[in-house]
Amino acid sequence: MSEKIITAAILVIGDEILSGRTKDRNIGYIAEYLAGLGIDLREARVVPDVEDEIVAALDVLRGRYTYVFTTGGIGPTHDDITADAVAKAFGVGIDEDPRVIAMMLERYKAGELTPARRRMARIPAGAELVENPISKAPGFRIGNVIVMAGVPSVMQAMLDFAAKGLETGQRMTVETIEAGAIPEGRYGDPLGRLAAQHSETIIGSYPSFLDGKFKNQIVVRARDPAKAAAARGAVEAMLAELAGDGKPL
Amino acid sequence: MSEKIITAAILVIGDEILSGRTKDRNIGYIAEYLAGLGIDLREARVVPDVEDEIVAALDVLRGRYTYVFTTGGIGPTHDDITADAVAKAFGVGIDEDPRVIAMMLERYKAGELTPARRRMARIPAGAELVENPISKAPGFRIGNVIVMAGVPSVMQAMLDFAAKGLETGQRMTVETIEAGAIPEGRYGDPLGRLAAQHSETIIGSYPSFLDGKFKNQIVVRARDPAKAAAARGAVEAMLAELAGDGKPL
Repeated sequence: MSEKIITAAILVIGDEILSGRTKDRNIGYIAEYLAGLGIDLREARVVPDVEDEIVAALDVLRGRYTYVFTTGGIGPTHDDITADAVAKAFGVGIDEDPRVIAMMLERYKAGELTPARRRMARIPAGAELVENPISKAPGFRIGNVIVMAGVPSVMQAMLDFAAKGLETGQRMTVETIEAGAIPEGRYGDPLGRLAAQHSETIIGSYPSFLDGKFKNQIVVRARDPAKAAAARGAVEAMLAELAGDGKPL
Repeated sequence: MSEKIITAAILVIGDEILSGRTKDRNIGYIAEYLAGLGIDLREARVVPDVEDEIVAALDVLRGRYTYVFTTGGIGPTHDDITADAVAKAFGVGIDEDPRVIAMMLERYKAGELTPARRRMARIPAGAELVENPISKAPGFRIGNVIVMAGVPSVMQAMLDFAAKGLETGQRMTVETIEAGAIPEGRYGDPLGRLAAQHSETIIGSYPSFLDGKFKNQIVVRARDPAKAAAARGAVEAMLAELAGDGKPL
């Protein structure tokens, strides 16, 4: 664990997300996973299967954040162009990697290694492999970019593997306070003052709308558990005061 | 309907998505909705509740695409900073809008309009309002940027309202072909050749992994329905040939 703040971005690659055909589930999964490792996810982007778009996004994100996690575009078909785009972004060559061929031969007979399947063995020069226990064809890591599959179960297995090599930070302590029936518009002003006082915490207010009613939660996050606890106490006292002040909610 | 290609980006604003606390459902919903309007979603981004980040993303996206749809950050609490960030991006003032106060008075008594609730009436100068039938406080549109709530049901109602004012394009025809048990690695090579021949279509191959098995779909998209149908026919013929060639899958 590092004293440093470790940051990350996610780059989701795929026309199918932008066309609405596939609903992304990877951003939410990776976000929660990284929070558990004390890595701050700072940004996510979804781009189409267009090389220039992938390269441009990679170049911005890998310069800004400790890590970039990509999902999608590493399968055997013509629309899988992520590995080539990553090689281009890093200015390195890309070729069939004998380590990958060996892995794939655990799953396929030699005669089954079609040219399409061999595409999955194309790995940018200098990359480390990210193992894929589900379908063998691996992801990879080059520099600070971790390249994973788009299929959620395969991505999740790759993330478990890749996580072993990541620098991690101190986890945020997260305190969730149920505001119950007290609306945001009633606690917004005192919560704003309280957030200003507890400036080493991050305080958010999150409404959800169910069965015709809003239900609100206030979430306090801080690296220092004592500061999170202090802010939680202050939020609870504030809510109790509002609940008892006799004014209409 | 326009002959032009109409494009869009989504900007999701909110720490809660990046921390993993809330799983975004708006990108998928808006993506599908825009596809139905013949608007091509080209990019999506998720940024935190940080003004500079919101402004920077807005400036890039509104310059590149016909429309930008934002979700999140327009509630009554201190962490709701989207309206101010949008005003800053457009270089216009922002002030309490009497039209919004009037709308809010349909829901609240005058004495209930706390300073926090009045924050929701702050609208950048020159913006049109986007009505919110659910909880009254509206979104808005300024230039090509449509600003909506983050709560999915409220966002969806705002999108219905905003859609009436959008320029729409010709819908893509989408043909989905079940590849069944034929793996991507078997059809990847002929599919790639076929995609090159049908260059006015966009052909994607999408595996999903269920109960230990991959199941694949091939999706053809094109603005011209005849070209989509032709590519579909070619894909089906290719799959039938593979299924009958006697080689191991």
